[in-house]
Amino acid sequence: MTQLTEVALNAPTLIAPINAAKELFWRQGYDETSIEDVVCATGMNRYALYNAFGGKLELFLAVLESYFVERKNLFMTALSDPQGGPMAAIREVSEYCITEMTDRGAGCLMCDVAAEVGRYDKAVSERVLSYLEEIRRADEMALTQAEARGELNTAISPKEGAALLIANMLGVGAMARNGAGRKELMTLFNTCLRLLSRQNGAQNQLRSSRNHKPTTVKQAQN
Amino acid sequence: MTQLTEVALNAPTLIAPINAAKELFWRQGYDETSIEDVVCATGMNRYALYNAFGGKLELFLAVLESYFVERKNLFMTALSDPQGGPMAAIREVSEYCITEMTDRGAGCLMCDVAAEVGRYDKAVSERVLSYLEEIRRADEMALTQAEARGELNTAISPKEGAALLIANMLGVGAMARNGAGRKELMTLFNTCLRLLSRQNGAQNQLRSSRNHKPTTVKQAQN
Repeated sequence: MTQLTEVALNAPTLIAPINAAKELFWRQGYDETSIEDVVCATGMNRYALYNAFGGKLELFLAVLESYFVERKNLFMTALSDPQGGPMAAIREVSEYCITEMTDRGAGCLMCDVAAEVGRYDKAVSERVLSYLEEIRRADEMALTQAEARGELNTAISPKEGAALLIANMLGVGAMARNGAGRKELMTLFNTCLRLLSRQNGAQNQLRSSRNHKPTTVKQAQN
Repeated sequence: MTQLTEVALNAPTLIAPINAAKELFWRQGYDETSIEDVVCATGMNRYALYNAFGGKLELFLAVLESYFVERKNLFMTALSDPQGGPMAAIREVSEYCITEMTDRGAGCLMCDVAAEVGRYDKAVSERVLSYLEEIRRADEMALTQAEARGELNTAISPKEGAALLIANMLGVGAMARNGAGRKELMTLFNTCLRLLSRQNGAQNQLRSSRNHKPTTVKQAQN
C-alpha cells in the first residue's frame, strides 16, 4: 500500500484531489464515492489519480492522513500559546472539530467513514486506532500541563482525563451523525471540560452553569 | 411498517427468531444478514417469518425494540432497588452493556448496526434517536434521585450529567467496535461516573484512583 508522507501530501498537485476526495467521502461515505466523482470534482484525470495514489483505498488513506495532520498541527499550535493554556487549547480544537462535524451533518470523517471502510480493510481500522492513540497522547500531554498549572480536577489523572476526552468526542461524533446540532454538542463538550477542570474540586461548590440550556438528544431534521 | 408492541414481542413463537436475528445482525451487520440466515438459525420457515414481521427491515426494527425493552427493564429493576441507589443502578446497567459490546467485539447493536441501516432508512434513524432520548431521560431521572440523596457532583445538573453519560456510552460503543476490551472500557466508564459523583466535590481532594491502570486506545487484535 502507498504510504504518503506529510511532505508528499503537501505536493501542490495532490492538494486539490485530496481536498475534493475528503469532501466527497465525508458527505457521501466511502461506498458512494467513486474515482469518477473525484475526476469530476477536480478535473484531474483518472490515470493521473491512479498514478499518484494507487487506488480508491489508498486515496482514502491519503485523505485520512491529511485530515489527521491538519488537526494535529492545529492542536500543537493552540497548545504552544502560553496565553491560552492547555485547557483553552483542548477547547479550541474540539470546537473546530464539532463545527466541522455539524457543518456537514455527517459526523466525524475519521471515526464514522473510516469505520465503514474498516469493515473491509484491516489497514484502515488499524490506522484509525493509531490516530486515536496519538490524539489520546496529545490530550494527556495537555492535561499534564494543566495539572502542573493547578488547572486539572484533582480527582483525576491526565491519563484518565485524556481517555474520557477521546470517548466524549467519539460520542459527540456519533450524535452529530444522527442529526444533533452544534450548540447541543458544544454544551455537552463543555460539561465534560468543566468536570475535568480544577474549579470543580474544592474551590467551587456552586453549580456554575445551572442556567445553561439543557442538552437533549434531538430528532434528526427532515 | 409493522409496529410490534411489547406484548407481540413476547409472543412465544417470535422470541426465537428475534433472538436469532439479534445475534446475526449484531455480529454480521445488516447487509450481511439475510432472511435465509434467520431461517437457518431458527428452522422457522421463510413464509412464516415474512408473515410475522413483514420483511427484513421490520424484523430489524423488532430486534431493536426487543433490545431496547430488555435494557429499559434492566435499568428500571436496578433503579427500584433502594439498597443500591441510583449511581449503582447506572453502573450495573452500563457494565451489562459494556460486557455485551465486548463479548461480540462488535460494538453497540443499537448505535452501530442501526447507524448502518439508518443510511438507507429514515424510520430506523428516527427510532434510534427516540431510544437515545428515552435512555437520556431515564439517566436524568436516576441523577435527579442521586442529587436528592446528595450523591451528585454539585458542579453539574442531572440533565447535563445524563447527556454526558449518553455521549460516553456512544464513545465506549465506538471503541468496542474498534477492538477495545472490557477492562479498558470499564475503567473509562468508571472515570466518567467518578466525575459525576459528589465525592469529587469538596469532600475528596485525594486522587482516589491514581493507582488505576491507565486507559489506552488499544490496537485491534488480529
